Amino acid sequence: MRILGVDPGLTRCGLGIVDAAGARRVSLVHVSAATSPSTADTPARIGRLADAIERVLDEHRPDAIALERVFAQANVSTVMGTAQISGVVMLLAQRRGLPVTLYTPSEVKAAVTGEGRAGKAQVGYMVAKVLGLTEVPKPADAADALAIAIAHAWRGAAAPVGTGGTTAAQRLWAEAEQAAKRRR
Amino acid sequence: MRILGVDPGLTRCGLGIVDAAGARRVSLVHVSAATSPSTADTPARIGRLADAIERVLDEHRPDAIALERVFAQANVSTVMGTAQISGVVMLLAQRRGLPVTLYTPSEVKAAVTGEGRAGKAQVGYMVAKVLGLTEVPKPADAADALAIAIAHAWRGAAAPVGTGGTTAAQRLWAEAEQAAKRRR
Repeated sequence: MRILGVDPGLTRCGLGIVDAAGARRVSLVHVSAATSPSTADTPARIGRLADAIERVLDEHRPDAIALERVFAQANVSTVMGTAQISGVVMLLAQRRGLPVTLYTPSEVKAAVTGEGRAGKAQVGYMVAKVLGLTEVPKPADAADALAIAIAHAWRGAAAPVGTGGTTAAQRLWAEAEQAAKRRR
Repeated sequence: MRILGVDPGLTRCGLGIVDAAGARRVSLVHVSAATSPSTADTPARIGRLADAIERVLDEHRPDAIALERVFAQANVSTVMGTAQISGVVMLLAQRRGLPVTLYTPSEVKAAVTGEGRAGKAQVGYMVAKVLGLTEVPKPADAADALAIAIAHAWRGAAAPVGTGGTTAAQRLWAEAEQAAKRRR
């Protein structure tokens, strides 16, 4: 299954595509960050980002979209633009019949690092490990988009099992790291 | 000029179209409220509302869109959905080459009633007066959408002149009420 992860934003919108084959095998297909100039008006910025997202959808034809869930209590100065772009991503998905799944930042961090409060650097490190990359994708929005896609690839399996809420995620972490080592 | 006013919302999205001819002459073309069930997931709700908005655009071919500006400090439980729909409206406008202008609720109230802190009832009353309607359009989202369209029709002229910030708006109020009386 091919998954597009989207880290929505009006200034930079992270786009990361992975192919997921079987349990732990995920590989990089595409990573980029669509941008729009803060000097343009909001409708023009939204149109520009939508065009960039559609080009990626056209080129790589993902089967599903995983999108970061936006919260109103986040940074007020950027949250409205983020929500607007997330609405646009949902519409583009809907128009193409693609399922959209929303993940909170904590869910994504927990899935890829085993820790819901992991920092950006840790998430980037694990994204590179899991995908067998020698460097962390830049900018951070692009790495985050890949993390969201990986979280979706691992969904279900990441649900809490056993006694601790992060047990499954921690097990996935170890498995993913093993898989990454084997790949090199 | 034909103007579509949009009061964005995920549960109810007010849509009001007016034709503006010359200085104070505005007339009703269309008013409705697109709805989506809160039981559906957000992408499905957004797709449904976008379809309804596109049907109105196809049928009435407005020349411009006036959209309520959403603030993060508004009601947190609804503001994210409102921002998502506003992003979708901007995209639909952009794809059709229609200019979008954003108005704050205070700007709309000031334009149609002369008072930026006017209540819903006062806005509805003035919308009915200005358009020569015998009743206030319902639901409130629909009346608000018409108020936004009227505010756009009157833009520029509503800028403060003379000594008081609301002097111009108050003058428009009187002129609009006169025009409404003449029409009946």
